[in-house]
Amino acid sequence: MNRKYTVGQLADIVGGKVRGDAAVFICGVADVSEAGPTDATWVNREKYAEKLKSSRAGAVLIPTNFGETPMPAILCEKIEPSVAKLLDAFLSPVSRPDAGIHPSAVIHPSARIGKNPSIGPNVVIDAEARIGASCVIHAGTFIGRGTIIGDDCFLWPNVVIRDGCRLGHRVNIHPNAVIGSDGFGYYFDEGRHNKIPHIGGVILEDDVEIGACTCVDRSKFGHTVVGAGTKIDNLVQVAHNVHIGRHCVLVGQTGLAGSVRTGDYCVFGGRACALDNIAIGDRVTLAALSIADKDIPDGLMVSGFPARDHREELRERALVRRLPKLAEQLKELIHRVEQLETSTHNHP
Amino acid sequence: MNRKYTVGQLADIVGGKVRGDAAVFICGVADVSEAGPTDATWVNREKYAEKLKSSRAGAVLIPTNFGETPMPAILCEKIEPSVAKLLDAFLSPVSRPDAGIHPSAVIHPSARIGKNPSIGPNVVIDAEARIGASCVIHAGTFIGRGTIIGDDCFLWPNVVIRDGCRLGHRVNIHPNAVIGSDGFGYYFDEGRHNKIPHIGGVILEDDVEIGACTCVDRSKFGHTVVGAGTKIDNLVQVAHNVHIGRHCVLVGQTGLAGSVRTGDYCVFGGRACALDNIAIGDRVTLAALSIADKDIPDGLMVSGFPARDHREELRERALVRRLPKLAEQLKELIHRVEQLETSTHNHP
Amino acid sequence: MNRKYTVGQLADIVGGKVRGDAAVFICGVADVSEAGPTDATWVNREKYAEKLKSSRAGAVLIPTNFGETPMPAILCEKIEPSVAKLLDAFLSPVSRPDAGIHPSAVIHPSARIGKNPSIGPNVVIDAEARIGASCVIHAGTFIGRGTIIGDDCFLWPNVVIRDGCRLGHRVNIHPNAVIGSDGFGYYFDEGRHNKIPHIGGVILEDDVEIGACTCVDRSKFGHTVVGAGTKIDNLVQVAHNVHIGRHCVLVGQTGLAGSVRTGDYCVFGGRACALDNIAIGDRVTLAALSIADKDIPDGLMVSGFPARDHREELRERALVRRLPKLAEQLKELIHRVEQLETSTHNHP
Repeated sequence: MNRKYTVGQLADIVGGKVRGDAAVFICGVADVSEAGPTDATWVNREKYAEKLKSSRAGAVLIPTNFGETPMPAILCEKIEPSVAKLLDAFLSPVSRPDAGIHPSAVIHPSARIGKNPSIGPNVVIDAEARIGASCVIHAGTFIGRGTIIGDDCFLWPNVVIRDGCRLGHRVNIHPNAVIGSDGFGYYFDEGRHNKIPHIGGVILEDDVEIGACTCVDRSKFGHTVVGAGTKIDNLVQVAHNVHIGRHCVLVGQTGLAGSVRTGDYCVFGGRACALDNIAIGDRVTLAALSIADKDIPDGLMVSGFPARDHREELRERALVRRLPKLAEQLKELIHRVEQLETSTHNHP
Repeated sequence: MNRKYTVGQLADIVGGKVRGDAAVFICGVADVSEAGPTDATWVNREKYAEKLKSSRAGAVLIPTNFGETPMPAILCEKIEPSVAKLLDAFLSPVSRPDAGIHPSAVIHPSARIGKNPSIGPNVVIDAEARIGASCVIHAGTFIGRGTIIGDDCFLWPNVVIRDGCRLGHRVNIHPNAVIGSDGFGYYFDEGRHNKIPHIGGVILEDDVEIGACTCVDRSKFGHTVVGAGTKIDNLVQVAHNVHIGRHCVLVGQTGLAGSVRTGDYCVFGGRACALDNIAIGDRVTLAALSIADKDIPDGLMVSGFPARDHREELRERALVRRLPKLAEQLKELIHRVEQLETSTHNHP
Repeated sequence: MNRKYTVGQLADIVGGKVRGDAAVFICGVADVSEAGPTDATWVNREKYAEKLKSSRAGAVLIPTNFGETPMPAILCEKIEPSVAKLLDAFLSPVSRPDAGIHPSAVIHPSARIGKNPSIGPNVVIDAEARIGASCVIHAGTFIGRGTIIGDDCFLWPNVVIRDGCRLGHRVNIHPNAVIGSDGFGYYFDEGRHNKIPHIGGVILEDDVEIGACTCVDRSKFGHTVVGAGTKIDNLVQVAHNVHIGRHCVLVGQTGLAGSVRTGDYCVFGGRACALDNIAIGDRVTLAALSIADKDIPDGLMVSGFPARDHREELRERALVRRLPKLAEQLKELIHRVEQLETSTHNHP
């Protein structure tokens, strides 16, 4: 990971323009306050200009309209994509299995593997599965019977994708995630819980990312669906028959109960939750830890339990904090009314 | 999965009686509103009769006392078992390892494997373990030293069952679950946390089901116990020394802290929680997200944090929503009392 | 596991002194109320003396200043370390791979393995990884490219440690945990979420313990750090760029969002949470289920959502319980004020 670029080279990489000395060498990336003379850093708003004055960074990425800086700068039309390119320039090569199929992988004769596979040790691919071109499948990953996977997917170690699931292209699944496990459905009869067969599967559309130890259950019928471009963090539970829209974000430990539906561009903050059968519109944001117990219309920002309009919830929360004062005021007022009653009573 | 049945054949399969055309072909199962002419669907209450009118389903399962339907019907004494049989009739064969023991499995010479095993690639079974008859053990699953497993158990890929555990018959464990990991116990001495050895194990009784990425820890001594017929969903934490009764249901992301005890037929809704040492009676229902911080007697339905009688909690929650109004009323009343005080004071 | 010791032998093992018959045989450990005549038990406070009277235990560990007991006693200077030694004396040998490297393990030629390894079946160790001396690495565990592991580490089955991570000595990782998975970071541009490369790794310092199915994400740059001696339970989420201090305890299902920092000797009760960028001081305790949404100074005990001083939160919670009464008092008072107003109005 000992990379080294001049500021000029980095400007080309990130798509920006140099202001100052383009010959300075940069060997890493760090936070404004921690960067040393061979680190690049970035600042996205003028309000951080002050921090930059005391920074020892060797170079800084800034928006094009940003003022003077004490070190060489790279001016970027859009700061975030440029920072992503900066980080990418210093990314060490990640682990990936060698090209081909490792001899210890166990691949059913009826499975079909696309061109340019990188399939690691101890991978198991069951009957009638189909793997697209240029997929990377790490050690210990299991792909069930009849599951169909698109091109350029990347599966980290020990992932389990059960039978009858479908993945689009460029799907990225982190270690120990489980896709297509049985939905949690039973009927109670004769004193015991009896399993309801789940004949549906899971569809992960193009560009979906699934975090480590996250579980997406198969549906009772039809499919559990995660829409294109949706990103799911670690330890998230997506129950049977859920339909998540496109380009949503589900932060760690979120839980979607059975048959929840969301629109596109929704954000579930950390450990947010939607109870079963809830329908959530497009562009809804659930703050971290909020619990949706009824449908939420398009575009709302909600928080709390039960989740409601965020500003309303903040007001209520503030009133709960004022409860001791309210209780005291009430007590005092009761006393004053008693005195009034006495004096009124005594008056005549 | 291209199955095809006549309505008459399906009636035999689900144990019901045909009303209408028994010769119609059915090739799948779908929701009332989404079903097409070759799908079967079901309706369990008269109140959904209206929905049925606009349904395009080719056949419908209904209770015996249900009214007329626009499509052929199968009348069922009990609708839920019949629906389970209907789904089962369309269930594709799930992935399972070939009969026998895969040559890549590593089985300790002192382990004993029962009749008719299906043990997949890369399974590891440690010393002195005993596996019952007709068990299915998927790829990458690990069974620790001295662990004893009953007949007809089904272990999905990459499950870890550590040493000294006991499973009954027909136990079903989903991918990446962990049974018998060390309980989380330390004592603090000389500035550091020191590990307390956990000499107990885990017992999963007959017909227990454990969800994907769920963890059941071993006990300090004696055993952590999951009672017969209890079903546990994904990402659930069952801490050391917990005793769960029989025929309970724990929905996803539930957490039971150390030494919690529950009776039989309890339901933990999604992400419910019981704090350590809490004793919960028989037939207790914790609503989703409720937190039990003290013992709960038999038969109660509780909700909230802390969990309390559900109706009581609903009243409190409603009052919190009314807080803005209460605060306003109080403010207004203070003003009126001030006026009264002034007029009373001024009166004479 | 059929161990047998005399009370005298056990006293030597646990570092205590016998009072009573040292020749009694002990074959196990159990709770005071459940122990039989061949079990040892313990009691750490005088207030449990009563329970001891009805106990059938064959021997009891007690603090040195404890009164008379109905059975032979072992007097211990410090009860907790002695109990840990007692349990250890009855601990069955845990599963561990045979000494050496199992022939099915796949170890890259450029990886370096220290002395006395015990590396199990199907372990994968990628390029340039370095493993210290006397490490135990169980079946199915994956160690990524360039990851460096100290001496005497113990990795249970199916653990995934990705590339570029560093573990100190005596680190203990439970089954199916994931270390070094990508942090959850995207920037939104042109209608979609674009991945931010994470060029940092994870550092687990000496004596860290990581629970089953727990995830510690790699950082955007620099490292996600878990300080020496810190113990983390199951199903915990530690997001990118988090810095946890030394000798902390994180109980099951806890979640630390991105860039959270904690001091030393903090305790996160079960399912506690800190929102992103929160700084937590030394010796802070978050009660189970509390949610830190702002910085917390040294030494505080907090609870609730949002987390605040524990006593304050208890008062508020009690007032919420009193809300029905407050609402009733207010209603009654409004009535009395109306009457006063009427009589004052009518008076003249």
